[in-house]
Amino acid sequence: MSSANLHKWREIAFLRSALAPAGVGTTDEFLDWFAARSAANNFEVQRVPISSLEGWRVEPQTGNVVHESGRFFRIEGIDVATNFGPTPAWSQPIINQPEIGILGFLAQEIDGVLHFLVQAKMEPGNINLVQVSPTVQATHSNFTQVHGGSRPPYLEYFLDAGRAQIVVDQLQSEQGARFLKKRNRNMIVRIPSDESIRIGDDFLWLTLGQLAQLLQRDNVVNMDTRTVLSSVRFAGLGSRESLGPLDAADQPFAEAVLGSATADSDKALNDFDSAVSWFTRMRVEFKLETRSVPLQSLDAWEYDGQTIHHRDGHYFTVIGVSAVASNREVGSWQQPLIESAKGGIIAFICQRHNGILHFLVQARVEPGNFDGVEMAPTLQCTPSNHERRDASDLPPFFNEVMSAPPEQIRYDSLQSEEGGRFYHDQNRYLVLEIDEQDRLEIPANYLWMTIRQLKEFIRFNNLLNIEARGLISCLPLAALGSTSA
Amino acid sequence: MSSANLHKWREIAFLRSALAPAGVGTTDEFLDWFAARSAANNFEVQRVPISSLEGWRVEPQTGNVVHESGRFFRIEGIDVATNFGPTPAWSQPIINQPEIGILGFLAQEIDGVLHFLVQAKMEPGNINLVQVSPTVQATHSNFTQVHGGSRPPYLEYFLDAGRAQIVVDQLQSEQGARFLKKRNRNMIVRIPSDESIRIGDDFLWLTLGQLAQLLQRDNVVNMDTRTVLSSVRFAGLGSRESLGPLDAADQPFAEAVLGSATADSDKALNDFDSAVSWFTRMRVEFKLETRSVPLQSLDAWEYDGQTIHHRDGHYFTVIGVSAVASNREVGSWQQPLIESAKGGIIAFICQRHNGILHFLVQARVEPGNFDGVEMAPTLQCTPSNHERRDASDLPPFFNEVMSAPPEQIRYDSLQSEEGGRFYHDQNRYLVLEIDEQDRLEIPANYLWMTIRQLKEFIRFNNLLNIEARGLISCLPLAALGSTSA
Repeated sequence: MSSANLHKWREIAFLRSALAPAGVGTTDEFLDWFAARSAANNFEVQRVPISSLEGWRVEPQTGNVVHESGRFFRIEGIDVATNFGPTPAWSQPIINQPEIGILGFLAQEIDGVLHFLVQAKMEPGNINLVQVSPTVQATHSNFTQVHGGSRPPYLEYFLDAGRAQIVVDQLQSEQGARFLKKRNRNMIVRIPSDESIRIGDDFLWLTLGQLAQLLQRDNVVNMDTRTVLSSVRFAGLGSRESLGPLDAADQPFAEAVLGSATADSDKALNDFDSAVSWFTRMRVEFKLETRSVPLQSLDAWEYDGQTIHHRDGHYFTVIGVSAVASNREVGSWQQPLIESAKGGIIAFICQRHNGILHFLVQARVEPGNFDGVEMAPTLQCTPSNHERRDASDLPPFFNEVMSAPPEQIRYDSLQSEEGGRFYHDQNRYLVLEIDEQDRLEIPANYLWMTIRQLKEFIRFNNLLNIEARGLISCLPLAALGSTSA
Repeated sequence: MSSANLHKWREIAFLRSALAPAGVGTTDEFLDWFAARSAANNFEVQRVPISSLEGWRVEPQTGNVVHESGRFFRIEGIDVATNFGPTPAWSQPIINQPEIGILGFLAQEIDGVLHFLVQAKMEPGNINLVQVSPTVQATHSNFTQVHGGSRPPYLEYFLDAGRAQIVVDQLQSEQGARFLKKRNRNMIVRIPSDESIRIGDDFLWLTLGQLAQLLQRDNVVNMDTRTVLSSVRFAGLGSRESLGPLDAADQPFAEAVLGSATADSDKALNDFDSAVSWFTRMRVEFKLETRSVPLQSLDAWEYDGQTIHHRDGHYFTVIGVSAVASNREVGSWQQPLIESAKGGIIAFICQRHNGILHFLVQARVEPGNFDGVEMAPTLQCTPSNHERRDASDLPPFFNEVMSAPPEQIRYDSLQSEEGGRFYHDQNRYLVLEIDEQDRLEIPANYLWMTIRQLKEFIRFNNLLNIEARGLISCLPLAALGSTSA
């Protein structure tokens, strides 16, 4: 297939896959397999003091936590100054991981439906240890086997020219509150439908429709899967009307999601270039200055040999873990992880305008952002970090989200952040739809956008943050539970 | 007009303006006025030693050149390391100007045709002193009147909400070889056709068709105008075929430019998402590390009180000038400027594929780039800086461009870089069209794109460099010389 024809194939293949509630197996069969894979391997995770982590050390001159090889990642300090939000300046630990890794799905059309090769992957920070991950989830240190392990399976399809057709390859940011300018490649590559490849024990083919079903459950699909799935677009299909009926009449919200993902630009409340202009103003208006400093220079943070923590117990704690996983490239290892304050909320408010579902997007500064401002969900916060609980302290839309009546809730689940860096870090992912007649007061750093517009921005790096991308991927697709594949 | 309707109005208004060879006045009338404005004011520029520049000093501890207020810009040193190109590491002076300024056109429909308010503006580095500039060309120090001058006229239309409709507002990079991560806002704002405003002596309304005519001449239209004009898109119009005949049958290249600017995505040699994937690979493959260092620590650079220059006379020299301009906010001032080696070439090779004109785009690292790699013209170099003149030293396509036969040349003029920072800096801007049958060998960091695809990338910041944007703006539009408005 020439690359000029790729765009026609891609959107249709994505939609057909999204409308497939079963693939080479049913989702129930997947769940049985998934439970079996979790049981088949030996996984152990124990907390250990940072001071005793094998392979890692706290640098005496800086207090930074570094690997003996100088690779992987380091935890250091930053001083932050910004005119965004109620706190003009602070200092905090942050993960510095300058290497660009690959989060990638291998895809193949099987019986005419595009399938994605998922992995049942253990990460030491996962609350349930094993979650559904992309085919490949590899740091640059993995590629180059710094840790002495074997090369991750299927990596050659992503790295070697000509082994597979590249369908998506984007640089995307990760948590700006925890990582300093971290980015990964989000990839989807495709092999011809007649190519036969060996499927490892921990790997299985799923359709997009099946992944959407699994995203309705708590903590099954990992963060890396969600971010790669956010690159899936249906825009090239033309407007929703041209698609004809999809047997989703009993699923008005799912139908509205598809309508928003395919909405013509004249149905959007804001022209796309106006959204670009709005975002330019936000990048000019909100300043972010960061400066790397030694971790031990942070006044409010303490290291006691066990953990690095905030003196008031807020925000997050750096801990150490010792891990065993019989099916990983390296069978046992130790590493630092970040344990965040519990109870985080990641929420979009949406509303129909011109009959099309729009999402209220926030222009938001986070200290590790590569370029100051990124687009974020309507609300992204951890309530326990807001002590004063008054209007000067709480972010906009806090009350609208926290006290939303049940009839507004369209999506509500617990989803995990990356278990290779975060310990038992689950956030409540929430989507509310408010009534068409409601008139919200919208601060200047919020804008209504269709899913199609959001996905247009996702094509380019450092525009949507990972929380926004992940939550968009959770939205029920039109085919959810449908049998009309 | 609601912002949802903006995109329909905009592309049509842009095209109608591009097809208008005359506006409220003819281009000949403009040229008379322009000569008169240049004569009406008193402009003087003299070279002076850096050591004697009023308001500026060379910091004794660093050798950096700084303004006494700490504002405007500073010239400092950087150490550069990259795996792009033949030189893996070097050090050089660079301009650090962290403030984001505005380059903006005020636009208005007059007799149904969109006009742009241009300014006859003097800059001390301009080879001919006065060039056509956007309505507003203002640094943040201008807005805040750091230099004690008056506020630039018309600035309120760009800064005050509701004074004008924002048509374009983008953050765009400037020369990565000279500026450290510099960006400006590129804006077009529009006032209603029935609003009457005062037009200052140095201002005049022109159509896009007239600006295109002036861009066929050497050094009339300044760099800031070219970068703002690069944001003008015709994509929303649908394919060229739907536009009907444009009386441009005698101008096959101009017709081809319009065809490329409106080409449907299935006519492009590379799918747009494939171009995004290619650029992601380039950003991952090419590394750039820079570190700010004191200017006086640069081994190969010397300061003798007069200038800061490379010991071999290559690259560029920092000089001082004393300027008088009777029509500027501040009537006289002194400042440093950069004088580059002469004879720079900025060239695109283009070729028809699938009947559509494609441009050979280079993924290129320049030391001041905000995000490592940007898209650049096919060739961007100063031949005198390449001493060895062999294949290991000369950039790809050097010979194809430098020895192109006259029948391939579609555009050839001298254009100036920004005269507020650069002294007599003119480059040869060149576009060659090679035969459809020619097969060029294309290195991995080059890709063929249509103008529509290039303009799609321009919407997002730090993707196309200023040389590429400026050269695209020079391309003759379909209406050039036509009288069919």
